Amino acid sequence: MTTAEAPTPLPGPGLAHPGVAQARQLLPPLLRDRVARLGSELGAICAYQLGLCDAQGEPAQGHGGKLIRPAFTLLCSAATGGSAAEVLPAAAAVELLHNASLIHDDIMDGDRSRRHRPTAWVRFGVPRALLAGDALIALGFEVLAEPRQPATAAAIADLAGTLRRLAIGQDGDLRFERETEREIAVDECLAMLGGKTGALLGCACRMGVRHAGAPPGWADAFDGFGRHLGVAFQIVDDVLGIWGDPSVTGKPVGSDVRARKKSAPVVAALRAGTPASAHLSRWYASAEPLTDDQVGTVTALIEEAGGRYWALAEADRRVAAAWDLLDGLPLDPAARRDLVDLTTTLTARRH
Amino acid sequence: MTTAEAPTPLPGPGLAHPGVAQARQLLPPLLRDRVARLGSELGAICAYQLGLCDAQGEPAQGHGGKLIRPAFTLLCSAATGGSAAEVLPAAAAVELLHNASLIHDDIMDGDRSRRHRPTAWVRFGVPRALLAGDALIALGFEVLAEPRQPATAAAIADLAGTLRRLAIGQDGDLRFERETEREIAVDECLAMLGGKTGALLGCACRMGVRHAGAPPGWADAFDGFGRHLGVAFQIVDDVLGIWGDPSVTGKPVGSDVRARKKSAPVVAALRAGTPASAHLSRWYASAEPLTDDQVGTVTALIEEAGGRYWALAEADRRVAAAWDLLDGLPLDPAARRDLVDLTTTLTARRH
Repeated sequence: MTTAEAPTPLPGPGLAHPGVAQARQLLPPLLRDRVARLGSELGAICAYQLGLCDAQGEPAQGHGGKLIRPAFTLLCSAATGGSAAEVLPAAAAVELLHNASLIHDDIMDGDRSRRHRPTAWVRFGVPRALLAGDALIALGFEVLAEPRQPATAAAIADLAGTLRRLAIGQDGDLRFERETEREIAVDECLAMLGGKTGALLGCACRMGVRHAGAPPGWADAFDGFGRHLGVAFQIVDDVLGIWGDPSVTGKPVGSDVRARKKSAPVVAALRAGTPASAHLSRWYASAEPLTDDQVGTVTALIEEAGGRYWALAEADRRVAAAWDLLDGLPLDPAARRDLVDLTTTLTARRH
Repeated sequence: MTTAEAPTPLPGPGLAHPGVAQARQLLPPLLRDRVARLGSELGAICAYQLGLCDAQGEPAQGHGGKLIRPAFTLLCSAATGGSAAEVLPAAAAVELLHNASLIHDDIMDGDRSRRHRPTAWVRFGVPRALLAGDALIALGFEVLAEPRQPATAAAIADLAGTLRRLAIGQDGDLRFERETEREIAVDECLAMLGGKTGALLGCACRMGVRHAGAPPGWADAFDGFGRHLGVAFQIVDDVLGIWGDPSVTGKPVGSDVRARKKSAPVVAALRAGTPASAHLSRWYASAEPLTDDQVGTVTALIEEAGGRYWALAEADRRVAAAWDLLDGLPLDPAARRDLVDLTTTLTARRH
């Protein structure tokens, strides 16, 4: 048992990993301290979004984010000879920006449920959830700017560029979902994933290599590493969004199919040129709400057209491409092993 | 006549002032360059919001913001011996943050019209307008972070703190509008204005004093100067929102009264303890839509209860308090005169 003052452990869905455990130990006290700067009213919304407390303001047990991005920042730092203390502000900044993006995306997409509970806009209303997202962005830049080191300005420009790319990527996604006439190519879909989810994990990884003593040029390798992994994790998430166990994903059964989301497995299935693809295409062209049985039919068609197989193979290709980029770099062996384990754990979430 | 490539003059409502003219000459090329980083789709929304183009993407003539905040940054810099080139990124950052705040506030408040044309969410939909706001925040931090000088980290922390305070202030405003049971005190209303609009003009002014050679300690004086002026300008805007000419304000007649906004003149009128106050209070307690005649009646009651008189006197008090803070500082006389003129022009917008 912990008291409210002690760092609260935030167990996630089956992620027992030393890198994640370190992020869960180091991040919450810093995040709590920053959120306190928002005052009790706006701070309560941000603490809820960050999983630091429940909707009643009580310390949360198990509703937090998985802290995967800061875990990558910490592990990439350790792998290249940095200390956790040096990169902790960057790890916090990435997690704050990630949550700002989630809170705003949930408003835009009308998603009502995340991490097994109502999304912030459902709980606090759209206007205040929107503001809480802005406040999280502010906290992200503030925590990164306060250690006034020579490299701070470059790190800030990097974080701002990442926020800009996230916005461009999400805007592409919004337009993508709206295009009912035109067939989306698989490459376009992957490029969109790269912009939307690759950008932030790329930032998380290269931020981990922005410490004193990091060899110059490594930031690019870790950026590419994170980008490939970000796309791989998103594809696995897309698979879980269709075939995942709701008790693991925290989303209602079949919600992605019901919303006719053009996630990566669906786009691949639609473009596979099989009879099932043509059948699936007719279901996606209609705007009629789907019954539970119809959700089952559509899910089976995506599988039959090869959507699941392609997606998991593409995730594997991305993971391999990520590791190719770090090939030959003299990384710390223990930290490298932790990175491999975390990557494997995250891409193995196939149920 | 200008070509599309040349800096487009953006004439505002009756603001012919050398400081504003300088901002209008220097800012648009930099803003255009930054907005281009967003690509054509998201960039078009941001260019529309910034008044750089119309809804069809054509260069705008006369729909731009008044660039008052960057004008203050440039004038405060000139008054303290800085150059426009040194503080231009800061002036741009303040204008970008201001527009991010406007685009998000318009979504939250459901406002449909700004600067004589539809607000961005009306034109482009809520999701994409929300993202455009995030993108403007990103551009603001990016433009400020790129000159990698020793003072950059401090300036970034300052901008992030301002964004945080803007969010807290706007959240206070949202809760304020929701409180139908409790009477709002005039002091609370002024504190809320200080958080919401004072914070950004304070930032604009102290950013102007963040140049090489600015005497230490002056930033605080200019911060207070900007905060007082921000409150004064907001009060004058509130007066215009009730009694202003729609052809000047760009808002429909009586829209603030129709929305029962608890702006400063209304709060003062409600708390004045006059018979008109009691009468006004009954109108504000009802949720029934107001007819045009009733809007006229309520407007007259606000005036009768002393709301307009109090507001304009408070604006004058704030302007005097602002100048008191700069009293005795050896400012550049020409720049000081320009600051006085601009302040007078802005607080004289009483029709």
